Amino acid sequence: MRTLVHHPLSPFARKVRVVLAEKRLEVELEVEKPWERREEFLALNPAGELPVLVEDDGATVVEHAAICNYLEEAYPHAPTLLGREVLLRAEVRRLAAWFDVKFNQEVTENLVGEKLIKRFSGSGTPHAQAIRAGLANIHYHLDYIAYLADRRKWLAGDDFSLADIAAAAHLSTIDYLGDVPWDQHPEAKDWYMRIKCRPSFRPLLGDHLPGAPPPKHYADLDF
Amino acid sequence: MRTLVHHPLSPFARKVRVVLAEKRLEVELEVEKPWERREEFLALNPAGELPVLVEDDGATVVEHAAICNYLEEAYPHAPTLLGREVLLRAEVRRLAAWFDVKFNQEVTENLVGEKLIKRFSGSGTPHAQAIRAGLANIHYHLDYIAYLADRRKWLAGDDFSLADIAAAAHLSTIDYLGDVPWDQHPEAKDWYMRIKCRPSFRPLLGDHLPGAPPPKHYADLDF
Repeated sequence: MRTLVHHPLSPFARKVRVVLAEKRLEVELEVEKPWERREEFLALNPAGELPVLVEDDGATVVEHAAICNYLEEAYPHAPTLLGREVLLRAEVRRLAAWFDVKFNQEVTENLVGEKLIKRFSGSGTPHAQAIRAGLANIHYHLDYIAYLADRRKWLAGDDFSLADIAAAAHLSTIDYLGDVPWDQHPEAKDWYMRIKCRPSFRPLLGDHLPGAPPPKHYADLDF
Repeated sequence: MRTLVHHPLSPFARKVRVVLAEKRLEVELEVEKPWERREEFLALNPAGELPVLVEDDGATVVEHAAICNYLEEAYPHAPTLLGREVLLRAEVRRLAAWFDVKFNQEVTENLVGEKLIKRFSGSGTPHAQAIRAGLANIHYHLDYIAYLADRRKWLAGDDFSLADIAAAAHLSTIDYLGDVPWDQHPEAKDWYMRIKCRPSFRPLLGDHLPGAPPPKHYADLDF
């Protein structure tokens, strides 16, 4: 059976989980705590990062963007999440990177990294300044989502794509903390509600960390 | 004429310059200082990052990895830098991301960011601690290059690929500072020497920043 080595707090693993579900590719999940830096895991991925995909035949695919591109190329008959047209695919990849790089650095690491990863990994106390920065930065990104969703059906164009998945994967980890100011960003909320309703997204809403439960609205489709 | 908006200090722009040259796609270079955050540039790329590719017909492609994937897809008859086989392509992308994410964070930002970008952008004084971290971290990455180059002809396999280009693009910016300890890493040096000899790499060796000249060996093919 195909296996994805993941952790509920990894937005990159969340992205790949949704991609696999959208492509209707079955997978077994295996939890890894990357901060433990287990030797067996580092042998799988010397970078020590999640997720890692292991195919039925033992073939290993490492690094979240490489995995998403691999799934497009290895399963050409599954629904595409990049689109068919070359410039559209470039736009999808640009926006996926926006969330995987910029949003990750400006928001996810400041909130999920400081509040949850530090606690679970026992690597120090949260920096109040970083948390403040994350809470301030998220508005700009929610505005950008609203800007895009106002002009297009989905973030990159007419079709649901990897851009929506990357954005929603990051936001879902922040939403687990209850730190997304949805009420101030109704257009972004509308877009996120549409994603939450997709069957591919449901398993993420069932994630539950012992000792750190999500707020009540986290799993609600109508929040 | 196709245009690449770049800066000599951007390893991501260097990567795309080499990719374009390997694919024999002509391009005009236009220098941008991203730290100035010019409005016209932010209109081109709201993320404010280099490089940006503008095609003849005005089509704009943004974000270094999206540009590299775009060039593979838009010019299928040009030499491929990802390879043909799906798992090989995943390995090329994994390694390109290793250098574009991990090496960038652990080495490039600590050395080029602290020593040169801060100076040119006037954004503060270099942190000695960051520079020390960069100088320490680079050994691990040069060891990894040696490990790969010992087992394979090029970093990702038998063929020269985007993995080699990404690694060399980052290293070339550090080498501009004279901060690559080549003498302690002869296998990595051998690999880099093979890349320096490629015609696609020559223009990078002619880069010259006013007031911050490179060391003598920077442009030497036999260094």
